Amino acid sequence: MLSLNQKTVDSWSLPEAVRGCVRAGIGSIGVWREPLHEVGVARGAELIAEAGLRVSSLCRGGFFTTADDLDDNRRAIDEAATLNADCLVLVVGGLPPGSRDLAAARRRVAESIGELAPYARERSVRLSLEPMHPVYCADRGVLSTLRQALDLAEPFDPAVVGVVVDTFHVWWDPELEAQIARAAGRIAGFQVCDWITPLPADTLLARGMMGDGHIDFRHIRALVEKAGYTGDIEVEIFNADLWRRDPDEVLSLMARRFAEHV
Amino acid sequence: MLSLNQKTVDSWSLPEAVRGCVRAGIGSIGVWREPLHEVGVARGAELIAEAGLRVSSLCRGGFFTTADDLDDNRRAIDEAATLNADCLVLVVGGLPPGSRDLAAARRRVAESIGELAPYARERSVRLSLEPMHPVYCADRGVLSTLRQALDLAEPFDPAVVGVVVDTFHVWWDPELEAQIARAAGRIAGFQVCDWITPLPADTLLARGMMGDGHIDFRHIRALVEKAGYTGDIEVEIFNADLWRRDPDEVLSLMARRFAEHV
Repeated sequence: MLSLNQKTVDSWSLPEAVRGCVRAGIGSIGVWREPLHEVGVARGAELIAEAGLRVSSLCRGGFFTTADDLDDNRRAIDEAATLNADCLVLVVGGLPPGSRDLAAARRRVAESIGELAPYARERSVRLSLEPMHPVYCADRGVLSTLRQALDLAEPFDPAVVGVVVDTFHVWWDPELEAQIARAAGRIAGFQVCDWITPLPADTLLARGMMGDGHIDFRHIRALVEKAGYTGDIEVEIFNADLWRRDPDEVLSLMARRFAEHV
Repeated sequence: MLSLNQKTVDSWSLPEAVRGCVRAGIGSIGVWREPLHEVGVARGAELIAEAGLRVSSLCRGGFFTTADDLDDNRRAIDEAATLNADCLVLVVGGLPPGSRDLAAARRRVAESIGELAPYARERSVRLSLEPMHPVYCADRGVLSTLRQALDLAEPFDPAVVGVVVDTFHVWWDPELEAQIARAAGRIAGFQVCDWITPLPADTLLARGMMGDGHIDFRHIRALVEKAGYTGDIEVEIFNADLWRRDPDEVLSLMARRFAEHV
């Protein structure tokens, strides 16, 4: 089922996003920590539960290679437990400032997952490794492919360490079919948005509404479902043009495009 | 040995670039077809030979998925033969306009290589498949990883179909070590430039001078040399800021950075 990731309507507070979902008939939400903190974790969880929404993900922990703050990641795990979120999405971080040692950064990610996994298991929270498009390798995520994420997740119980498949990040991967099949039982989340060209100037806000770009969503959705995934499908679009539009309109456009393209 | 790819000094004509190399003591050049055509292929080859320069590559053929012009690729092979270039670099092309069928585009690349290989063999020209950074998958190159390029090249004689390793395109690849080792005997060219952040607004011109970004060149050079590559190392930088500078200064900066970082 369709889930709204809050980032798609960045101007809304969490209460506004919850009410927006209810108005639009959307049954699930992907929550970000900053707007959650604004309203308070307990109160946020209450609002979402009162509205009858599922929490498809909490975004995000990680940044192991740059902030290296495992305490903050433990807090994120606690928050995911409070929200009863399907997973805690981990964006692992880029190269530490001034470093060109990619192998070391990647080792640090593996070590951090090892340190957090027992804590997550105790709280029944599923960590979800997010392979990021290689355009973000230097500054946001040294985890670049689904193969690499699965290699990293493999030593852990799939209920504790899963992966999130985000079409924007993985659509180009020549191994996509094989690696999504391999991910069976480990897919903790499925996010969609489009790859548009020319790529907007700010790569962080370069994501497009489904149908505006080059991604064959039906194909990737079929792969993910063939691998046994039955959870929500989150629409997560970072896009400055979209953020300037009326959020209710964005939701209705999103629902229409989801039906047409995903 | 250091080679100047013409694109690094885009404002120069081929004769100017040849004279610039001679002045700077650079023994090799990577030639682009458009400036070659301006002076004429035979005359261009003559100028380069008279200057005593090697031709590390002719850039570029390809665009099989969009232009689909095999006749033009045959002309490019003829030109590479006339120049006695070490290889003809192939940028394979992105998705055809309006298409989201990535698998079909990739099949078309394989078919095109199959059609061109005998022609290249007859002229002793080495085709060089260039895996492109996934940021270009939609609009420039559906060949996204070294693994994929090697899979494609495998059925062919390594003297006829090789690969080019460009640090900008491959530096992020978690399989880089393994795939460069696998490429032994097939590395037809090695190009360097840096990955800089924030990525410049025009992704096509987003490449940086060595030392300005995040790439560990010595590491990748060691991998390439361990795989037996002994050819020239081309500096190829598409960058609008660099193009506005005095080309002779760019050459001296390039030589200095090459010594420091590569």
